[in-house]
Amino acid sequence: LKVAVIGTGLIGASIGLAASERLGARVAGVDPDPGPALAAGALDEAGSLAEALDDAEAAFVAVPVPILAETVAAVLAAAGPRCLVTDVGSVKAAVVGAVDDERFVGGHPLAGAEQGGAAAARADMFEGAPWFLTPKSTTSGIHLERLHHLLAGLGARPTVIDAEAHDRAMATVSHLPHVLANVLVGLAADGVPAMGPSFRDATRVAGANPDLWAGIYASNADALDDAIARTIAELETVRARLRAGEPLREWQSLAAGHRGTLRAAGAGGELAEIHVVVPNRPGVIADIALTLSREGINIADMSLAPSIDMATGSLDLSVPSEHERRARELLAGLGLGA
Amino acid sequence: LKVAVIGTGLIGASIGLAASERLGARVAGVDPDPGPALAAGALDEAGSLAEALDDAEAAFVAVPVPILAETVAAVLAAAGPRCLVTDVGSVKAAVVGAVDDERFVGGHPLAGAEQGGAAAARADMFEGAPWFLTPKSTTSGIHLERLHHLLAGLGARPTVIDAEAHDRAMATVSHLPHVLANVLVGLAADGVPAMGPSFRDATRVAGANPDLWAGIYASNADALDDAIARTIAELETVRARLRAGEPLREWQSLAAGHRGTLRAAGAGGELAEIHVVVPNRPGVIADIALTLSREGINIADMSLAPSIDMATGSLDLSVPSEHERRARELLAGLGLGA
Repeated sequence: LKVAVIGTGLIGASIGLAASERLGARVAGVDPDPGPALAAGALDEAGSLAEALDDAEAAFVAVPVPILAETVAAVLAAAGPRCLVTDVGSVKAAVVGAVDDERFVGGHPLAGAEQGGAAAARADMFEGAPWFLTPKSTTSGIHLERLHHLLAGLGARPTVIDAEAHDRAMATVSHLPHVLANVLVGLAADGVPAMGPSFRDATRVAGANPDLWAGIYASNADALDDAIARTIAELETVRARLRAGEPLREWQSLAAGHRGTLRAAGAGGELAEIHVVVPNRPGVIADIALTLSREGINIADMSLAPSIDMATGSLDLSVPSEHERRARELLAGLGLGA
Repeated sequence: LKVAVIGTGLIGASIGLAASERLGARVAGVDPDPGPALAAGALDEAGSLAEALDDAEAAFVAVPVPILAETVAAVLAAAGPRCLVTDVGSVKAAVVGAVDDERFVGGHPLAGAEQGGAAAARADMFEGAPWFLTPKSTTSGIHLERLHHLLAGLGARPTVIDAEAHDRAMATVSHLPHVLANVLVGLAADGVPAMGPSFRDATRVAGANPDLWAGIYASNADALDDAIARTIAELETVRARLRAGEPLREWQSLAAGHRGTLRAAGAGGELAEIHVVVPNRPGVIADIALTLSREGINIADMSLAPSIDMATGSLDLSVPSEHERRARELLAGLGLGA
């Protein structure tokens, strides 16, 4: 296995380390300054894009969001026909909309660290981390399934989702917490005597990598604006209750319930396996994954074996047991029998 | 050393454990249900208020904010003349305003845990944690100095501050993060595919102990309302920039600077020792500590030795070296020479 990593900052170098240590991959890097990633042991070699892609089975584009689409296009132009190309950008609709190539699958690992840069890279960065995949109808099912496996091999939990749904969700669960962290440190900067644990936790990402994050905010501006507007509306409700002297006990309990639900959703559980025979046409695997995703059904594992004549394929899907019945209905709705 | 703990939840039981393990204290608890604290090894005994206070040198009132003032009053009424009484309430102006007793020093440790209750108590809960003290002019300097020592013995970093300044600061660095955590889980409850590290960190306190926190919000309603209003104003600025397509790079960098400043402020550094002779009159030690606090000078350590005739005392103060000159000027302004 040879893996190319284009952009060898914190995430790119961590992919290199994980692919090397966990999968025994040879890792080739491309970066204006590959020195830190080489020093961190994340790359076996560094060189030109052509050198890195030569014989590579997978290419990870891990560059800042503003130059993501153009870099993905350049990598696809230089990559061979069997090389799968993915990216790790925090915002997906723009790049996925700009690229139509069966070798490309948009991706986004929900992982990071306080410090950026290859020096902070870790082989276990993706252990248990959600890693979103945003295929579309032009995406090859074979590449999607290969990437799903590869990411599971890095320790991640691959999760298929629509690019637009991804961006709306990230506005709430990632970009908004960064904005709120910045606001909090700004309010406290007037001078506070000390910070408590809740403040430290809430502001850990304040001011994170300004170049990177300014690009993320800008490329998801509409969804982020909407998430901030909803935050303000909720805060105005809290203010009104505070000023009216209404107790906030029920509101606090409601939040406890929400948090419990969110934690339980991330905990996982029993899996059921579903076997389907799929026709060999472009996009069928992506359609299956996205159809399940739209009803909140995550594919924990997938395995695709083409038939000998390549006319059909045999697909095994692992889904949460409580969703098995609905998943089978949805597959039947797509004309796919067990 | 005998310590009484009134209210043996997470904080009360942790005080018991820390006092027992670190200071060898005998700990007596008062609670409608002292079972969990006894089971956690946080108490040597549990009984009535009179039994707990008998021979106790210090009493910690660790009950919810809504019943704080009445409980402090009851403890002061039952405690002996040499027993110092303090509390651990998250909001200070109300209780400090309600109590005029030289034995009372308002307090608030900036510590906590995800789970409440005595079962989650830890002896190291206060290790390195800021612990605010809010004396006023009626507070005995001897009791203030004793409490300062006792808290340092529990591993905490005692910090003297005006009760009102404390409450304004906590609205920003503690109560507001709790409100924002609740808002975030509420927005995400509509259904998000996964949570990332920034969301998990920002929502760790969402829905924390509804009874406790509803009481805290209510008792600091004005300052919290103001902190939320400033949050909304800043969020509206961010929205306007997002919609105008203005880059947020500088704003992100500014937040990085604020975070760096806040972290550096908490890191500590070289200390200088200042020796002053103080007259034996009520409130002089509290006045000194509050005067320094108002200019951001924290007393890292203090030691008070009364003269033989009790007419004056010898006070040693440790303050950050960079503040030594200003501290000496402020002491001179109070008529206190070296």
